[in-house]
Order: sequence, then structure tokens, then C-alpha cells
Amino acid sequence: MEKLIMVMAFVGSVLALLFALATAFKVLKFPEGTDRMKKISASIRKGANAYLGRQYRIVSVFFIVMFAILGAMAWAKLLTPFVPFAFLTGGFFSGLSGFIGMKVATAANARTANGCQESLDRGLRAAFSAGSVMGFTVVGLGLLDIAIWFSLLKFVFKLAPADITSAMLTFGMGASSMALFARVGGGIFTKAADVGADLVGKVEVGIPEDDPRNPAVIADNVGDNVGDVAGMGADLYESYVGSIISASALGVSAAAAIGVSDALKFMALPMLIASIGVICSIVGTFLVHTKEGASQKQLLSALSRGTNFAAVVIALVSWPLVSRILGAEHWKVYFAILGGLVSGVLIGQSTEYFTSASYKPTKDLAATSETGTATIIIGGLSVGMLSTLVPILIVAVCVMLAYCVSGGQTQPAMGLYGIALAAVGMLSTLGITLATDAYGPVADNAGGIAEMAGLDASVRERTDALDSLGNTTAATGKGFAIGSAALTALALMASYIDKVNALPGGAEKLSNLAINNPTVLIGLFIGACLPFVFAALTMKSVGRAAQSVVQEVRRQFREIKGLMNFEAEADYARCVDLCTRSSLREMVLPTVVAIIVPIVVGLILGPTGVVGMLAGATASGFLMAVFMSNSGGAWDNAKKYIESGKFGGKGSDNHKAAVVGDTVGDPFKDTSGPSINILIKLLSMVSIVFAALVVKVGLL
Amino acid sequence: MEKLIMVMAFVGSVLALLFALATAFKVLKFPEGTDRMKKISASIRKGANAYLGRQYRIVSVFFIVMFAILGAMAWAKLLTPFVPFAFLTGGFFSGLSGFIGMKVATAANARTANGCQESLDRGLRAAFSAGSVMGFTVVGLGLLDIAIWFSLLKFVFKLAPADITSAMLTFGMGASSMALFARVGGGIFTKAADVGADLVGKVEVGIPEDDPRNPAVIADNVGDNVGDVAGMGADLYESYVGSIISASALGVSAAAAIGVSDALKFMALPMLIASIGVICSIVGTFLVHTKEGASQKQLLSALSRGTNFAAVVIALVSWPLVSRILGAEHWKVYFAILGGLVSGVLIGQSTEYFTSASYKPTKDLAATSETGTATIIIGGLSVGMLSTLVPILIVAVCVMLAYCVSGGQTQPAMGLYGIALAAVGMLSTLGITLATDAYGPVADNAGGIAEMAGLDASVRERTDALDSLGNTTAATGKGFAIGSAALTALALMASYIDKVNALPGGAEKLSNLAINNPTVLIGLFIGACLPFVFAALTMKSVGRAAQSVVQEVRRQFREIKGLMNFEAEADYARCVDLCTRSSLREMVLPTVVAIIVPIVVGLILGPTGVVGMLAGATASGFLMAVFMSNSGGAWDNAKKYIESGKFGGKGSDNHKAAVVGDTVGDPFKDTSGPSINILIKLLSMVSIVFAALVVKVGLL
Repeated sequence: MEKLIMVMAFVGSVLALLFALATAFKVLKFPEGTDRMKKISASIRKGANAYLGRQYRIVSVFFIVMFAILGAMAWAKLLTPFVPFAFLTGGFFSGLSGFIGMKVATAANARTANGCQESLDRGLRAAFSAGSVMGFTVVGLGLLDIAIWFSLLKFVFKLAPADITSAMLTFGMGASSMALFARVGGGIFTKAADVGADLVGKVEVGIPEDDPRNPAVIADNVGDNVGDVAGMGADLYESYVGSIISASALGVSAAAAIGVSDALKFMALPMLIASIGVICSIVGTFLVHTKEGASQKQLLSALSRGTNFAAVVIALVSWPLVSRILGAEHWKVYFAILGGLVSGVLIGQSTEYFTSASYKPTKDLAATSETGTATIIIGGLSVGMLSTLVPILIVAVCVMLAYCVSGGQTQPAMGLYGIALAAVGMLSTLGITLATDAYGPVADNAGGIAEMAGLDASVRERTDALDSLGNTTAATGKGFAIGSAALTALALMASYIDKVNALPGGAEKLSNLAINNPTVLIGLFIGACLPFVFAALTMKSVGRAAQSVVQEVRRQFREIKGLMNFEAEADYARCVDLCTRSSLREMVLPTVVAIIVPIVVGLILGPTGVVGMLAGATASGFLMAVFMSNSGGAWDNAKKYIESGKFGGKGSDNHKAAVVGDTVGDPFKDTSGPSINILIKLLSMVSIVFAALVVKVGLL
Repeated sequence: MEKLIMVMAFVGSVLALLFALATAFKVLKFPEGTDRMKKISASIRKGANAYLGRQYRIVSVFFIVMFAILGAMAWAKLLTPFVPFAFLTGGFFSGLSGFIGMKVATAANARTANGCQESLDRGLRAAFSAGSVMGFTVVGLGLLDIAIWFSLLKFVFKLAPADITSAMLTFGMGASSMALFARVGGGIFTKAADVGADLVGKVEVGIPEDDPRNPAVIADNVGDNVGDVAGMGADLYESYVGSIISASALGVSAAAAIGVSDALKFMALPMLIASIGVICSIVGTFLVHTKEGASQKQLLSALSRGTNFAAVVIALVSWPLVSRILGAEHWKVYFAILGGLVSGVLIGQSTEYFTSASYKPTKDLAATSETGTATIIIGGLSVGMLSTLVPILIVAVCVMLAYCVSGGQTQPAMGLYGIALAAVGMLSTLGITLATDAYGPVADNAGGIAEMAGLDASVRERTDALDSLGNTTAATGKGFAIGSAALTALALMASYIDKVNALPGGAEKLSNLAINNPTVLIGLFIGACLPFVFAALTMKSVGRAAQSVVQEVRRQFREIKGLMNFEAEADYARCVDLCTRSSLREMVLPTVVAIIVPIVVGLILGPTGVVGMLAGATASGFLMAVFMSNSGGAWDNAKKYIESGKFGGKGSDNHKAAVVGDTVGDPFKDTSGPSINILIKLLSMVSIVFAALVVKVGLL
């Protein structure tokens, strides 16, 4: 059976990659438009390439150091010798996902703008195809990496299931580390450029967004690609892989706990569900098209048609598969997968309710601009904080359901396996949800190019329609990312406990996991603090980087004669270079913190402290991620709502207040918020990888 | 022995109350100044009285309903018959603490302004005396309530120690409920008025703070009294009483666990330490005086002389007492008390570092105003988030230390008793720390009166010196409030576990407190979410109330002819009335949420879910309280730093940006942040009081 599943996994991954390749060629067939458009697109591409090149150079130093450390630990028999290599491949594939996504996105931006000159549908096709390349690259590479390692360890090295999952969790750590670098670095770049461009251009000088006179305008567009595309690609690769391998790991323990001899079945189920998800997603993409003059609603329904189709087919197909693979007595585990799938959608809807201008919260937020900047800031912060309630209840119900249907009351290990499978279910449609999500930045860039190249206003209207839709799909995408992060983090916490219990002397050290045990409690406090500190560090970084951009942009407006009346051109490259340098400098500290803290906590407070830390970080990280993402989303859309002519419209004092809100929201929703999702998983993976060290030399 | 301690407690409380009374007479002997000053002071007094009168009417409805519910539960034998009455007295005394504090503060404001006409020392004496009345009223009433109930239950009704502490925890719940109403209602009032006055007056119209032309100026001053004085009084009454009774309750369990027959000694120790603290604090107040032309530093050292004296003497005296009372084998428990005392000071210093313009974080924050409003908002949020790290480490070390020195490794119950005693140690100097804290709003009001009455500029300078000092002492005060809240909440969580274990069938329901038990985890998630939701609700309330004030103030500037050139007077009363109505309307929901949630969680998830919820709420509540208070403090002082002439000074664009930051910080530091301290304790107390119901009829 497991060979068949591995074949399925290879088939799924290869299909996904072939589909991505074919779609990439389709994108390249779209014409790029006028020379001016080509030139702009080329500068964006150049900036993005330069950034990624430098980022990878810095990150590779980190990977070499970690490889050496893990190698030394393997040499000291604290890890299996596969671990250092698994770590590298995870990092490599995660980076590659982002790189390919960025390549195709920077190729598609001018093509989308050009497509919009022709028709809305053509624009949508160009942008959505680019998104699809990214979506299917992520899932294809993810499955491929898992399938290769699994086959290697199982069929070549003939390791036992527990050793296989243990090595595989390490490439999760590699993927998470890379993802964190990409998200934080890209997030700082994009927001520093965005804040810099907006604050001086829109607020101080009063020129429109994406105006070619703004020196930071190219940097802003580069940022969309390195942050929202490359960063997101690495991030979701990490989520996808993390959910599958943590479920596999817990499958091994579940099988052991209920006395099933063939653990491989339990281990392989998550991969099978993922493979089916890939195939359904590919079919789903063919359903996404629209006709000219389509309304927002019709555009949205074009996109949802694809994702809904994929979700429904996965739900139908997994039903018989679960009982087939796990045995008829475990057929209820199916509901854990279904619960995950549904919860992802529900969290997405809650996100949409709190952040879309179609609903009360964001409309009310726009109204607070009547009384100035301070009230819209207070209002946005409280919308975000309030919006944590519904997602947390959804996750709570999902966890409880997944645990109980899988038989957790009598067999806790089965219950935990169910929770991990819920995360796999939630991410099973990632291929297509990511496609609908990643197309947003492409449309955004296309709008920028249309503006800078001086295309007809109707083109900008079309790109705006696509972009604004992108905000809604991004909200749904965030729902999946955040929800799956919480479930996966809980699953990884369970894997950590398993791992420590399996180590010599580990079980004894973990004997008192009660929440009123002081080491657990203190771990909980410290863990809960980490997302706050992490958010602070990343925001400070954005602030510092943005300040330098603001000063540079102001300088150029002041010193370059004739810039305002189009007689001279701004020095775009300097802004790009400035953003690159500052974001790369700022990217290192937060990631290093995320890696060192779990080790230090483990060495001082022992494994019980680590478990407390993981629980605290997961709870507070989930809340902070939802809070920050939703505050940011609500400010963004409140601003757009005002720009649509409400409360005085563009240029009014209300609009100025809303722009400040949006600017504060930028690092919230695109730097700190999404990074926290990665943080909480990275903490667990680091804890797992260093568990043997902690148990051996730790104080408690 | 325990009779002697009770006598000490009565002596301590009566001394505190007599000292407060004498000091109140001293305050009244100061002359009130000119007719204009008397008139302004009278309007403030009138507004504050009217507000409190209406607040108490609304709150009394709540207390009657709760009395009926608790009465019904007592009738159903789920509670002892003393519980409903204890609940009422807790609420009554908490309210009374706030009321007396407010009375004397409104009597002292004009007197302080008048004193400052004469000399700085005279102004300090008037303001500090008013603060002392409040400080000693709080501790006096707190000790009195505890002593009366203890004597009644022990010597009249002859209850067993466990039943005594159980009933006494209920008056903690009464006190916390009242405190939450007072903090939330007063906090909304003061910030709505403040935001309204600042936004229109300072930013839009461009008149100075406290300018008599501003229609919201009286409301702003009333707000200082009902929020910063009456709210804080009720709040700290609750903290003080909560720490003592939770320590007493855990003393009973600790005595039982180590097989000491005379539990009363363990129970009485916290009261004894509190009594000693009162006496040392009284002596300390006599050390507070200054000479004319004293610098900020000298003023601060005048205040610290008093508090440091009190702290050192308490530390010296408790040493022999601990071994005397608990027995020589438990002498190390002393270090728990000392650890609490020191931790409070350290948290205060960390708060000062992050929020005072003498240090880097706030100076850097002021510099972010160079690039506009958005960057100062981002900067302030990140300062606040980053500032959570040090206090959480201090609390972690304090908890670990208190647990270990008390012998927690072998006797967990003793360890928990140690944690509770650390909170008592931290609050033992409350009489004098509160005096130095509560004098701030009086000085603030005095400055307002000086401005409105058109006194000489030198007077305003003196009141400003006093006020600015108040910001520093307030930071220290907040350190004690937040630190003690976390420790007390942990102690109350332990009391809850004891309580449930003692109920029939309770121990079984609590058997799996492991943090990876799903009910515990889900409880943790929900609990961690509560401070976010609570902060959102209170901020939204401030936002709504402030919006109505802004509109009213704008209307008056627009419609009252001659207001700007002093020919007509603003309609102050209307603003006061508006603030009163909106804050009272908004005060109800957050408090009701805090009471209903623990009951619902208990009924659905069972006692393990409640424990998870309490741990989650304590961790995330502590973080949110520190974050919000410190962000607010840093913005406030960054603004003051700019006003002192840095970065363009008053009226510059930088200053305008800083004013927006300060305005956002207002509800952070004076409404949401401090309310969360009360919330986390109220959640535990409600859980304890309703434990019998939950165990009896809950699902799990």
C-alpha cells in the first residue's frame, strides 16, 4: 500500500510541476506591451533579482553554520546523519519556491497590464496563470521533497518509521528557517518601500500612487515581488510541508499507541490527501475565467468556482480513502480532515467580514476618519483585536472535533493525529488557493506599470478591479495560513513530546506537564511573550528602513530639479538599493532569536518548559497574527472605501487620516503578522531537532 | 498567635484610616485661592460627583442581581450563606476607596494650584497629602474588611480555615467587579474627554492644553478625577485585598499539605505583613518634602526617600517574623516576600526605562516623528511590545524563586503559597507608593486650574514640574499593579484548583491538567483571547465616546459666537454630561463579559478548561497590559520631549504627529491596559465562586 501511495505522491508532485511549467510558458506567450512597459518591467525584474541574489548569499551563510552545528550533533550521535542534509534540502526547496514564483510574477506584471488593454478576462488570465505557476510550484516541490526523502529513508536506508519522520521534521526546520528569512526580509523591503513611497508621495507631495515621479515607485513594485510573492512562496511551502510531515510523525505514534503493526499506512495518509489535493486543484484552475465587464462579484465567483470545486472533490474522494487506508474502524478520522477543510474556509470568511469594506466593521472604521487620524488608529487596532475571537473559536471547535472523532478520548495519540490531519485537510487545496492569492501582487504590479507607462485610464480601472479582488482572496489565503499554522504548531508540540519521551531519560523529565507546574507556567509566559517581541523587532525594522527611504525620497524631490514637472527622472535604483541593504541587515536578528530561544529555554527550564513555551507561543502567536493581519486589512480597505468617494473621497482630510492608518497597517499585515505564523512552527521544529541535546545536557 | 495578628491587622487598618483622616483635614486647611479658582474647582467637583452618583446607581443594579444569583446558589447549598454578603462588602469598600480618593482629590486641586503660587514645596505638600489620603484609605479599608470578615467567620461563626478563605475570596470578587466598573467607566470618561479636548483644541483649533475656551476642558479635568483617581482607588483596593486573601487561602492548603495542624498561622502571615507595611508607609510619608527650586531629580528623590524607607524597614522586620510565625524550618519563605518587593521595583524601573524621555527608547520614538504620524505610531507600538520582555522575565524569575525557596520542589502547595506571598510583599508598601502615584492627577488638575484661572506662568511651571514627576511615579505604580496582578492571578489559579479538588467529584474532573490535554489547550486559547477582546471593547468604547465629544466640541466652536476671543463661555456642562452618559453606557458590556465567560467555559469545557483559560488569560493579559501601558507612556513622554523644544518643538509637524501618538496612547495606558490587570483576577475569582456550580452541572 505505502509504495502505491509513494507513487501517487510522486505522480502528484510531477503533475503539479509540469502544470506549473506549462502555465509558465503560457504566461510567457502573452505580449509584454510597449517599450516603456518593457523597460519598467525590466527595472522591477532587475531590482527583484538583485535583492534575491543578495538575500540568498546571506542566508547561505546561515545555512552553512547550521549545517556545521547539526553535523557536529550528528557526529556526537545526538542526531541521525541524515538530519543536516534534510535541513539543507528543506531550505533549498523553500527558497526555490519563492524564487520561481518571483521569476514568473515579474515576467507577468507587464503582460497583465497589456492584457488589461485588451480585456478584463485576458488580464485575469495572465495574472491568474502567474499565480498558478507559484501555487503549483509550491505544492509540487513540497510533495517532491517529501516523497524523495521518504523513499530514500524507507526503501534505500530502510529506517524505522519513527526515524524517518524524525529526519523529515528536520527538513521542515530548514524550510521554516528559509521561510522566516524570506518573509521577514521581503516583508521589510516591501513595507519600507511602500511606506516611504506613500508618506512622501501621497501625503506630503500629493501625487497619486504609482506616479512615475515618485523615486520609490520602482522599489515599491520590487517589494511586491520579493515580499508578497517570494516571501509568501517560501512561507506557504513551509506551511504545506510542515503540516504533512507533522501529521506523518503523529501517525507513527498513533499507530504505535493503538497497536497497529503497519505504521506506514498512518504515515502515508497525509501524503495521499495532499496528492489528491494537487490533482483536484489542477482541474479547478481550468474553471477560472470571466467575461468582459464582469462585476467584482462575478470576478470573485470565477475564482471561487475553482477553489470550491477542488474542495468539494477532495472532501468526496477522501471519504472512502480514509477507511480504506486506516481500516474501517477509523473511518471517522475523515471528519478531522473535513473539519480542517471547513475551518479554513470559515476563518477566511471571518477575515473577510472584519476586513472587507462590504461589511460593517470596515465601514465603521472608515467613519472614524471623520474625527481624525488618532480615532482611525484606535478603531483599526480594536477591529483587529476583536477579530481574534471568531477564528480562535473556530480553531477551538476544530481541534476538539478532530480530537474526538479520531478517538482521542480513549487514545490521545489518535486524537493528536486527527488534529494534524485537520491541518493537512485545511491545506489540501493550497495549489489553487495560493494561485488565487498570489495573483494579487501581479495585478498590483500591473496597475503600477499601467500608471507609470501612461496607459489609458480604463486599463488602470481593470487592473484595480483585479487588485481589489486580490485583497479579498488574500484574506481567504490568510485564513488558511493562520489556521493551519495553529493546528500544525499544536501537532508539532505533540511530536516534540513524543520525541522527548522516546529519548533515554526523556520520559522522566516530561513527567509533570501539568499547567500549574512552575516550569510549564514560566515556559508559557516566555512563549507568549515571543510573538510580541518578534512583532516589535520586525516593526522596528520596517520603521527604521522606512525612515531611511522617506529621507531619500524627500532628498530626491528636493534636489532633483524638474522632477515634479516630468523634466527629470528620479533615481529609482538608489531607492531599490537602499531597501535591499536595510531589509537584509534587519532580517537576521528576528530569525536568530527564533532559533536560539527554544534551545536556551530547553537548557534552563527543561523539556516541560519547552512544552509550555510552545503552547504559549502558539496561543499568543495565533492571536497576534490574526490581530495584526486583520487590523492591517481593515485599514487598507477603509482607505480604499474612502477613495471610492465616501467620507470626502480622495484628498480629503479623512483620506489623509485613512492613509496613515493604512501605512501603520502595512507592516502589521505584510511583515509582522505573516512572519509570526512561521515563527510558531519554527520554534517547535527547532525544539524537536535540539531535543536530544536539551535532554542530555539541560539543567532540568 | 492569630488573635495577636488580628489585633495587629485592626491596629494597622485603624491607624491607616486615622492617618488618612488627619491628612484630609490637613488638605482642607490649605486655602483654595481666588474666586475664579474656587469656581473652576467647584465645577470639576460637581461633574465628578454627578458622574460617580450615576455610576454607583448603575453598578448597584448589577450588585443586586449578583446578590440574588449568589443567594440562590447559597440556598441550593452550592455556596456558604456568607458568600453573597461578602460579595457586597467587597464591592462597597472598593467603591468607597475610589469615592473618598476622588473627594479629596477634587478638594485638593485648587489648593495645590494655590500652594504653587507660594512655593513648590507647598504645592507638593498639598498634592502629596491628597495622594496620601487615597493611599491610606485604600489600604486601611482593605485591611479592615479582611480583619472584620476573618474575625467574624473565625471567632463568631467558628468556621474551619478552608471555609473562611472560601468566603473571603468572594469579597475579592465583589471588589474586582466594582474595580472593573470603576476602571472601565472612569477610563472611558477620562480618555473620551481628553481625546476630544486634544483633537479639536490642540490639533484643529490650535489652542493650548487646558485653555478655558475649550468646551471639553472641564470634562477633561473631571475625567482625571473619576478615572485616574476613583478608578485607580477601586483598582488598587482590589489588588491589595486580592493578594492578601489569595495568599491566606493558599496558606491553608500549604499547612494542610505539610501536615501543620495550625493552618491559621499560615493564613494570618499575609495580613501581618500587610499591617507592618501600613505602619512603615505612614512613617515614610513624613520623609516626603522638598525645598524651593528643587530639580526634577530632587523632587523624585524626595518621593523615593519615603518609599525606599518603607520598603527597607518592611524587608528588615519581616525577616524575623516569618520564622517566628511559620516556624524556623520555613524561614526561607522570607525570600519569596523579599523577591516580590524587589521585583515590583525592578518592573517599575523597566517601565521607566521604556517610557521616560530620559532614556533611548522614548528619545528614539520622538525622532520617528521626523517622518510623520505613521512612523511614530508604528514606533510606539513596537516599543510597547518589546517592553514586555523584561517584565515577563522578572516575573518568571520571581515565580521560580518564590516557588523554590518556599520548598515547592518537594511540597508544591508551599511553593504556591510562596508565589502568593511574593504578591503580598510586592504590595506591602502600597500605602505610600499609591500616595506618590495618586498625587499625579491632583497636580495635573492643579495645572489645569492654574491655566484656566489665568494664574502667573510660574505657577503653571511648578504644577508642570509636579505633574511630570507624577508620570514617573505612575510608571513605578504601574509596575507594582501589573506585577502583583500576574502573581495574584497565578495564586488565584492555584486556589481554584484547590477549591475544585475539595468539591465532591471535583478531583476526578481535574485529574488531567496536562497542557497537551485538549480541554486545557482550548481553554488556554480562549483565555489568551480574552484580553484582546477586552482591550478591543474598551478601546472601541473610548473611540465611540470620544467621537461624540469631538463632534460636540466642534459644534460649540462653530456655533458659540465669540468663544475664540473670550467673549462667550463654552458650555462645559454639556460635555461633562455627554462623557458621563457615554462612559456609563459603554462600561457594562466588558464587565459582564468578564463575569459570564468563565462560567460558560466551565460549563462546556469543565474545570480543566477553566484552568487553561486562567493560565492563558494571565499570560496574554500580563503582556497586553504591559504593552498597552508602555506604548501609551512612551507616546506621552515623546510628545512632552518634543514640547520641551526637541525636533521642532510645540506646533511643529513633528509635534502634531506626536500628539496623535499620545492620543492613541490615551486609551492604551489609562483605559484598556489597567483594566486588563483587574480582568485577569476577576476571571479567577468568578471561576472560584462558581466552581461548585460548574462541577455539579457542567458537561465535562
